[in-house]
Amino acid sequence: MTLPQGSTPEAAREQAARTYELDRKHVFHSWSAQAALKPMVVTAAQGCYLWDGDGNRLLDFSSQMVNTNIGHQHPKVVAAIQAQAAQLCTVAPAHATAARSEAARLIAERTPGDLDRIFFTNGGADAVEHAVRMARLHTGRPKVLARYRSYHGGTDTAVNLTGDPRRWPNDHGTAGIVHFFGPFLYRSRFHASDEAQECERALEHLEQTIIFEGPSTIAAIILESVPGTAGIMVPPPGYLAGVRELCDRYGIVFIADEVMCGFGRTGKWFAIENFAGVVPDLISFAKGVNSGYVPLGGVAISPRIAATFDDRAYPGGLTYSGHPLATAAAAATITAMAEERIVENAAQIGATVLGPGLRELAERHPSIGDVRGLGVFWALELVRDRETREPLAPYGGTSQAMIDTVAAAKAAGLLLFVNFNRLHVVPPCTITEAEAKEGLALLDQALTVADGYLE
Amino acid sequence: MTLPQGSTPEAAREQAARTYELDRKHVFHSWSAQAALKPMVVTAAQGCYLWDGDGNRLLDFSSQMVNTNIGHQHPKVVAAIQAQAAQLCTVAPAHATAARSEAARLIAERTPGDLDRIFFTNGGADAVEHAVRMARLHTGRPKVLARYRSYHGGTDTAVNLTGDPRRWPNDHGTAGIVHFFGPFLYRSRFHASDEAQECERALEHLEQTIIFEGPSTIAAIILESVPGTAGIMVPPPGYLAGVRELCDRYGIVFIADEVMCGFGRTGKWFAIENFAGVVPDLISFAKGVNSGYVPLGGVAISPRIAATFDDRAYPGGLTYSGHPLATAAAAATITAMAEERIVENAAQIGATVLGPGLRELAERHPSIGDVRGLGVFWALELVRDRETREPLAPYGGTSQAMIDTVAAAKAAGLLLFVNFNRLHVVPPCTITEAEAKEGLALLDQALTVADGYLE
Repeated sequence: MTLPQGSTPEAAREQAARTYELDRKHVFHSWSAQAALKPMVVTAAQGCYLWDGDGNRLLDFSSQMVNTNIGHQHPKVVAAIQAQAAQLCTVAPAHATAARSEAARLIAERTPGDLDRIFFTNGGADAVEHAVRMARLHTGRPKVLARYRSYHGGTDTAVNLTGDPRRWPNDHGTAGIVHFFGPFLYRSRFHASDEAQECERALEHLEQTIIFEGPSTIAAIILESVPGTAGIMVPPPGYLAGVRELCDRYGIVFIADEVMCGFGRTGKWFAIENFAGVVPDLISFAKGVNSGYVPLGGVAISPRIAATFDDRAYPGGLTYSGHPLATAAAAATITAMAEERIVENAAQIGATVLGPGLRELAERHPSIGDVRGLGVFWALELVRDRETREPLAPYGGTSQAMIDTVAAAKAAGLLLFVNFNRLHVVPPCTITEAEAKEGLALLDQALTVADGYLE
Repeated sequence: MTLPQGSTPEAAREQAARTYELDRKHVFHSWSAQAALKPMVVTAAQGCYLWDGDGNRLLDFSSQMVNTNIGHQHPKVVAAIQAQAAQLCTVAPAHATAARSEAARLIAERTPGDLDRIFFTNGGADAVEHAVRMARLHTGRPKVLARYRSYHGGTDTAVNLTGDPRRWPNDHGTAGIVHFFGPFLYRSRFHASDEAQECERALEHLEQTIIFEGPSTIAAIILESVPGTAGIMVPPPGYLAGVRELCDRYGIVFIADEVMCGFGRTGKWFAIENFAGVVPDLISFAKGVNSGYVPLGGVAISPRIAATFDDRAYPGGLTYSGHPLATAAAAATITAMAEERIVENAAQIGATVLGPGLRELAERHPSIGDVRGLGVFWALELVRDRETREPLAPYGGTSQAMIDTVAAAKAAGLLLFVNFNRLHVVPPCTITEAEAKEGLALLDQALTVADGYLE
């Protein structure tokens, strides 16, 4: 990867300075206090790397918000976008168009079980909004259960389903949403001593919540198949099967939110496939479906729920639903991922490099309290003390230790995904063994900074 | 415009048949009962025309949900998308990137008054969601006033702000949203006999609503500057200035929703510029900002509201906020619209061709009860009887008369935007005089079908 064609390093730096200046003057940023922001300028990207405004190369262990599963600037996806742009950029959602039909087929062929109808949205939040709407109208019930330690998106309904502090400033009394605790042995809410007990008690807790909320009032249970930003807590064996059973017993719709964990991230097309035989009723997706090259999200729908809207209008929609450019990018992404065995690569790198490598780091760095994950979806839980498990930053906040650790990684050339006291190792699914090892070595350096904050 | 390169008419028809078949099998459509759907396949588009699966050319008087203000496949926008795709498709929203900075500058330079900070979203619904969130947090008040006969988007909050029947199946008690009546002389709710009286009484009604709801409970008033899908009711002179005054008097945020009416549609960059001197606090936009070539929406923010989030985190965001491909398309669209005087063209065609032409049709077709609009944004109100003004289809529904009229237009080669008893004439802003006249002639034919349903 090089600088933009025909530009000199000086011209590139000038351009980056202008980008920064205009950004600070005119761009309002997500989830931030605006005054103190100093955004990094990104000028180019390729595969697992990106370049900042000073020409520094960074290894991207963040996948840009766990988004670019296929890596940056995959040539087949870029070519497909360019070809579709030349042919037909947009049509109204009421019409049928080739790219949308093809993407729907490719997704439907990969969804678990019988989910075979696709409603396209612009991103993950509206995918979740529509999944919840379908569940409420299908069941005629008002409430949705969602877990603490979760993230479901930024719109009003999605952010109120969310079980992290981003919900708080948006919560005007949480109408129709009830939160419960999910399984998370490292910080067990169930006083469990092993995974089997954690699983059993978490399911018991969920059933009790259903019973006391009133099964006849509950439309859906929404769960990230593997919770992402909240900490990559891989559910214990049997948990999701147990949730499916509870949903069946009480007539509740099971929504698997795969916005972050879908499309290869866990080494399977859908994360829920890691839990054999569990088929949700609805899957919300976005990000990895086309690696965010063009904004796209959607809901995969079971025939039973789709049938609710055979003769009754579905009361939801959007101008860009099934956008040709976005769905052409999805079709190319899925095809390339299949041809190049990119999902298999994610599984392989997780099992043979990232998993063992991160556990090896944990042996040497006392600041690592827990290593969790699968595929290219890993979390390091940083702690002040392994015994007490006191986090290196408080829930909902940050700390100098975390800030310095992340800055050290970046200075060394490694971009991480960070949440509170956790570092997430979430590179593209295309990452090579050499790149993964390069990243682990840089992480090794940065973790000495975290260790330095321990008594 | 021709068929896709290298394909024969037979191959194109086969491809269209496959598109249709896969669509019916796998695609779930917006706002529809799914079983009876027979979507038109769109295979190509150029300027004001598109082509269906049988190779028929249609003049697009719908702009694909009032979206493609710059027309289909504008070469400068296509080229910009292709170039950006080659350079950098996506980055995380926290970073700064050239296309986003440039688009924010180009938008901020065109927004009325001092609105100069841009928060990018994926589309119109989430733009409205975020505008409302900013207003609530800025004022610390819970409620939002919105008008009946309006559309604000498909997510939960946006569809509950909406004042049309699409709200009903999504309304679980309308928490924090209060609807009022806006000015609409043709179907006056204020027993008014002229525009001045309608304006005065509509403002009095709005102020009474504010007083009885409690000014200290109202965060925002949201209004489409010119309501779109609900009927293109151009507000009478003085109405929006009156709303601004009420907002100032009671400390309420004025949100102008310009998702449909912005970016040239009314012959101005923003529709609110038709009402000199009125500056809202927030503008939500989408569609015309890049003609939907890549999904994009956003909020333009006044410095006063932006300052609320200088030191306090704004609690909202999304992975694709300020997406490089989407903002590159916006920068190219705005630049081309300025260079080619496309906004001026919309004003000119409205004043000299569409306005006079539609009024001339109204003289000859008794089914036309009212002609309203400006720029390339016109509504024909079809009625059974000009005296009683009984609509040709009931509010919230359709009728054989409307179905047959629209089908006749389509058979003749004209695609219209339809809502209940109204035909909307909303071609691209790039439409030529000859194309506008061609469309009026086709509409003339179709309206004889509507006339035939009158007693």
